[in-house]
Amino acid sequence: METAVILCAGYGKRLGKEIPKPLIKVAGREILYRTVILLKKTGVKNFILVVNPDNKEKIESFIRKLGVKYKIVLNTNPERENGYSLLLAKDFVKEETFILTMGDHIYSEEFIREALNGKGIVVDYKPLYTDEEEATKVFCKNGKVEDIGKGIKRFNCYDTGFFLLNKHIFSVAEKLIKEKEPLTLSEIVKQAQIDCYPVVGKFWTDIDTVEDIKKAEKNLLKLSIKSVGDGFISRTLNRRISLWVSERLINRITPNQATFIVFLIGVLSAIVALYSPALGGILYQLSSTLDGIDGEIARASMRTSKFGGWLDSVLDRYVDFLFLSVLALHLEPLGAMLVWVLLAIFGSLMVSYTTERYKGAYREDAYEVVKELNYLPGKRDERIFFTALMCLLGWVELLFIVLALVTNLRSLFTLYFIWRRKGKE
Amino acid sequence: METAVILCAGYGKRLGKEIPKPLIKVAGREILYRTVILLKKTGVKNFILVVNPDNKEKIESFIRKLGVKYKIVLNTNPERENGYSLLLAKDFVKEETFILTMGDHIYSEEFIREALNGKGIVVDYKPLYTDEEEATKVFCKNGKVEDIGKGIKRFNCYDTGFFLLNKHIFSVAEKLIKEKEPLTLSEIVKQAQIDCYPVVGKFWTDIDTVEDIKKAEKNLLKLSIKSVGDGFISRTLNRRISLWVSERLINRITPNQATFIVFLIGVLSAIVALYSPALGGILYQLSSTLDGIDGEIARASMRTSKFGGWLDSVLDRYVDFLFLSVLALHLEPLGAMLVWVLLAIFGSLMVSYTTERYKGAYREDAYEVVKELNYLPGKRDERIFFTALMCLLGWVELLFIVLALVTNLRSLFTLYFIWRRKGKE
Repeated sequence: METAVILCAGYGKRLGKEIPKPLIKVAGREILYRTVILLKKTGVKNFILVVNPDNKEKIESFIRKLGVKYKIVLNTNPERENGYSLLLAKDFVKEETFILTMGDHIYSEEFIREALNGKGIVVDYKPLYTDEEEATKVFCKNGKVEDIGKGIKRFNCYDTGFFLLNKHIFSVAEKLIKEKEPLTLSEIVKQAQIDCYPVVGKFWTDIDTVEDIKKAEKNLLKLSIKSVGDGFISRTLNRRISLWVSERLINRITPNQATFIVFLIGVLSAIVALYSPALGGILYQLSSTLDGIDGEIARASMRTSKFGGWLDSVLDRYVDFLFLSVLALHLEPLGAMLVWVLLAIFGSLMVSYTTERYKGAYREDAYEVVKELNYLPGKRDERIFFTALMCLLGWVELLFIVLALVTNLRSLFTLYFIWRRKGKE
Repeated sequence: METAVILCAGYGKRLGKEIPKPLIKVAGREILYRTVILLKKTGVKNFILVVNPDNKEKIESFIRKLGVKYKIVLNTNPERENGYSLLLAKDFVKEETFILTMGDHIYSEEFIREALNGKGIVVDYKPLYTDEEEATKVFCKNGKVEDIGKGIKRFNCYDTGFFLLNKHIFSVAEKLIKEKEPLTLSEIVKQAQIDCYPVVGKFWTDIDTVEDIKKAEKNLLKLSIKSVGDGFISRTLNRRISLWVSERLINRITPNQATFIVFLIGVLSAIVALYSPALGGILYQLSSTLDGIDGEIARASMRTSKFGGWLDSVLDRYVDFLFLSVLALHLEPLGAMLVWVLLAIFGSLMVSYTTERYKGAYREDAYEVVKELNYLPGKRDERIFFTALMCLLGWVELLFIVLALVTNLRSLFTLYFIWRRKGKE
């Protein structure tokens, strides 16, 4: 499907802001940006935006910058409701079928990809990210819309605001407009008895209030956490704190700025450790706790970049090296102790090297393919937590011995597991 | 093109071996394996092999294992020459156009990819890898074959043994067979006045003698060297020796065996360095010199694997770490010297980490895209050569200081160059 109609003619009074609702930033990106860019990614080429006279200029100057083909359609009577808005788009839809969506709804990429497999109205049975009471209800029977509305009593699913329609819908709307004024989209949909297509459990929500924005930001950040690669300390401690911080920073800093600030905290922790390993250890753990922020912000605000991922990895290696080196200086290691120190520093690097080099060779994430790796201890979050703990206890020699053993055994097991899965191909 | 006819009915008397010529191993792979697997890669689905009665069984049992659709056609009168062999394939060619090639010719993948863009007889103006005197000459005029033969006086290019033919060629052959006996392919080609299509400077050769095999193996190994990523010592010293060794080992060991043996030499060098850094250094340089063998053998014998590349990289890191650690133990470093030691070991790893992590992120070779990296000193071959030299001179402290500076500066420059090229995307 190459055409999308986006209805942006509402006034969004409940938000009471100067900016048009589609241009309100949620988790660092305007609602309209999210919809347009995600749809563009799936192949949509023409965007038809129905706007009200007050918003026209701002919305047009915004979409111009997104580098897509668009048509702005003016609804000078927004009080005639969104059914009327849809009808105004009629002459600009060239394809037989088209996408219809709302300028105040946010969707995840997964939602959109699944939705595009269907037709009619996309519904959800159990919305995970939006308020069921506020949502428009749908009664779906034999795969068709039987009833739809906010206040209907008998319903079995919810309207996600995402439609895959046939041009036939316009003739239904034209017939209805003669009888009804104002005309809502729901009335058209009900009359046309379009198909229902369920997409369940994926992120979608509409934005009506400031609380909706906060809730959406929280959810987008939560969903931004990669499902693989997090160690025990990340899952149980770091992510809780980093998500809290990300929520407060997402509209204020870029992912690369976050990377750099956290890097500086890491470097600072090593400098402090020169004088006080205990205090340095606490700072080191802090930098580790905040290490997820850049990725969280990047994914939630649709700002991921290959460079950002690369830079973050490389800087992590520097911080780990610096901190362990400072601890080693305190120890003045000789003989066997020097061996443990060198092994610990080398092993810490190799944990990352083995899996990153794997990605370079196989173009896939080692943790996703060689599942055994997820059960090995010694990921960065775990190493740093243990390091900070040992610094507080003053057991730096033991720290190096344990690190040396855990990281190098982990690397050897990585070698073994990857060989077992891939060595005979 | 989905059909290939391969003429394998010759007796290859000059090689005087028990095995049919198409099954002779050149650089670790049978001639027929190379042709079939490379053609399969480019989309060929049906293979028609014309064989003589003595070879039939052996060739059939070989091609059965290659997992392709094939048809064996028996030429009970091979003395009637290869024109007659071609005619025998007639009833099995279903497509309008087909590939014709020889069971005693070897081609590189690049040759085949370029050749498939053309039609008629594929010719070369200046063969780089085959003996011009022995080759069949072609006189090409207005894009068509005017004359062809080993002994012709007027010619301007050479027959590569690779043809892209139309089924029309069979009617020409049928007409000729009534007048001529034996009938060579050259006579058919000349009579049909097929098009000439040049592919210049790519690897192709025919195999007639033991010397041809030796020469082809040498060339295949030379061509197996990757054009990027080699440092100064590799280009000027290591590759000359490793190629010489690879030539002698290619029919005897697998790439992974080579990886493992060279890894053991590296580990041994570290152990020896415990007692004599000078002797250890020499062994370390030897392991570096031989480090290219696995890749050379793998590429020349069509045995490359992602796992092999990954394993080789990871084991290299272990060897470097072990050797430098042993040297560090000799030094008993404290204070500033400990810092140099740690920096040298860390930096050596980071040279590889930064570019390998880049490959994981961007799915392309950093050295090919960020060309500046090729001019930075500090690649592994250079580091090891310098390390061995310093070990011989007994200047181990200086070694660590220089390694620390060169490798870490190199990593910082890598950071800078990649940021400059990619950081603003």
